[in-house]
Amino acid sequence: MSLSNCLGEFAERDWRTGAEGTVRLALVGLGWWTTERVLPAIEAVDRCETTTLVTGSRAKGERVAADVETVSRVLDYDEFHDGVGREGYDAVYVCTPNAYHLDYAETAAGLGKAVLCEKPMEATVGRAERLVDVCEEAGVELIVGYRMQTVPAVRRARELVREGVIGEPRFVTGVNSQRLLDMFADHDQWRLDPDLTGYGTSVVDLGIYHLNTARFLLDADPVAAQASMRSDHEAFDRVPDELASVLLEFEGGVHSTCVASQNAAERTYLQVVGTEGSLRLDPAYHMDTRLRLTVGDRSLDVETPDANQMVDLFDYFAEAVLTDRDPGPDGRHGLVDMRALEAIHRSAESGERVTVDS
Amino acid sequence: MSLSNCLGEFAERDWRTGAEGTVRLALVGLGWWTTERVLPAIEAVDRCETTTLVTGSRAKGERVAADVETVSRVLDYDEFHDGVGREGYDAVYVCTPNAYHLDYAETAAGLGKAVLCEKPMEATVGRAERLVDVCEEAGVELIVGYRMQTVPAVRRARELVREGVIGEPRFVTGVNSQRLLDMFADHDQWRLDPDLTGYGTSVVDLGIYHLNTARFLLDADPVAAQASMRSDHEAFDRVPDELASVLLEFEGGVHSTCVASQNAAERTYLQVVGTEGSLRLDPAYHMDTRLRLTVGDRSLDVETPDANQMVDLFDYFAEAVLTDRDPGPDGRHGLVDMRALEAIHRSAESGERVTVDS
Repeated sequence: MSLSNCLGEFAERDWRTGAEGTVRLALVGLGWWTTERVLPAIEAVDRCETTTLVTGSRAKGERVAADVETVSRVLDYDEFHDGVGREGYDAVYVCTPNAYHLDYAETAAGLGKAVLCEKPMEATVGRAERLVDVCEEAGVELIVGYRMQTVPAVRRARELVREGVIGEPRFVTGVNSQRLLDMFADHDQWRLDPDLTGYGTSVVDLGIYHLNTARFLLDADPVAAQASMRSDHEAFDRVPDELASVLLEFEGGVHSTCVASQNAAERTYLQVVGTEGSLRLDPAYHMDTRLRLTVGDRSLDVETPDANQMVDLFDYFAEAVLTDRDPGPDGRHGLVDMRALEAIHRSAESGERVTVDS
Repeated sequence: MSLSNCLGEFAERDWRTGAEGTVRLALVGLGWWTTERVLPAIEAVDRCETTTLVTGSRAKGERVAADVETVSRVLDYDEFHDGVGREGYDAVYVCTPNAYHLDYAETAAGLGKAVLCEKPMEATVGRAERLVDVCEEAGVELIVGYRMQTVPAVRRARELVREGVIGEPRFVTGVNSQRLLDMFADHDQWRLDPDLTGYGTSVVDLGIYHLNTARFLLDADPVAAQASMRSDHEAFDRVPDELASVLLEFEGGVHSTCVASQNAAERTYLQVVGTEGSLRLDPAYHMDTRLRLTVGDRSLDVETPDANQMVDLFDYFAEAVLTDRDPGPDGRHGLVDMRALEAIHRSAESGERVTVDS
């Protein structure tokens, strides 16, 4: 039997029900991710449009707005919190430093707007819990922006795991590293300030991709963490994890190891090894995810549709808002990651295995 | 600049000085590794020949000897310990269950024979220390059979690390898994008996490849360990590590993560990620090691000579014996692995970070 026979028909974008409409978005936070990646992606999504920009710098907001035809309003943060222009958008995308997510989500919830919140949800478990509470109390949808969950290659991998093609999953290994200091001229930036990121930098910003993708692929959550971290470069003197290695035990006994570093050559990789074979995402997390399946001594590159990860994420969010259902990853899903992040950091600090709160 | 310009001339078998002669070997332990892999390899090494087989089953010994022209004598274990036929061999290859290595090495040392001892050196740190002592006291050479250290692709990788092609190494990740129960019909076997293996099975038998290869590539030793282990299948009920995940901190701050399992699909993999790029051995540990170099967004398969790993190991050992020098990996090198194995198991048992004794 050829390995390709393991691959049946599969609709990687099964969330598309054909619901029509347009979700008008307010984007909160105009960092490079929003301007370079999110705005162009939204322009490519039929069911979304950006109508409102919320920023601390009105000048920057006006400059960005000038290039986006659909934007009708630029708000400063106070205006947003006051509900100015609330009739002009249906949902809010929160892409600020982690420690501000709650403030904007709380306002959005109070205004009755659905929320797409970047990951990690907040800087601490406590604030993330409040974020979930305010959205639940207001009855607004909250989706956490785990864009890997809508990547065709990742959804295909999950399906192959579910179908048992690699047998029973036994362990997941992965890497997510990049050279942050080369990406941003300003080394005095929020990703290196634990008051704004939460517990550190490499694990909350990079390791979370491995953590959440492993959860998604395994359909299981971590129950215990061990970790080691170190920072040597002076730019990392406020965070513990210039380099972090993390060992997680999942429900059902699957192990996961991951190395995350904001100060190493770029490398992204995740593999699931089962009793019968393995699945590898390599590269894993940027815009070029590739999937390879190995069973016995046979390997196969699994073809998946081309994808712009942010286009898929916003299309998925639009579907949820237009059909008024919450398919996840919702706030309670995101809280599991927050509790795991906390456990990972506590383990690195104490040198002891830490149970993940549930 | 093309990435291939990073690759200068390199002699992967630089140990070959041209020394002539023949090392006559006694092989102790006639398991499948010795009969299937070692005997044919030695036949291919000009400077070695197998003259003596030492086994618990004389019938098996005679059967094996019938196919190997150079073998002139089959000894049982008592005869070996009594020095019978000592004039017929110059060196001893010890490939018994780990917990018996000391006994045979001690006899070999007493007879003034050089020793090539399979890894891990022994079942416990204490017995491994005695093994080193008896060889040192007798003044015989002791080399531990870390065959990865003589694999051309691995030596090439070490050279590229040393030359700084990937910048400063930051972390190593790897996997070594196989389905032991499919490899041996008899599940009641020594690799699953901790009295014979030492601390467990997956880490001492498979994880040690990652540990020792990482040490070799980094030219550094581990200083602390964290680990998690579990056994679920009944065949593994006497050992803690049907599945093991290990996190090591090395001198100089490099991290290493490794997953080892005797009960998962076969997968072998090791990568070193530095500040500028990465080197990957994939597959890593069986007879088909392949090396890939990535710097920035460019990758290159590094061509290395075809190799039979056991041929190279025995040629290397012959060189050491014929020239009367001990280029390592010697007993003191092997002791570092033993202490790391002990620390890994203690960490898994306690859930705490354990310092590796030095």
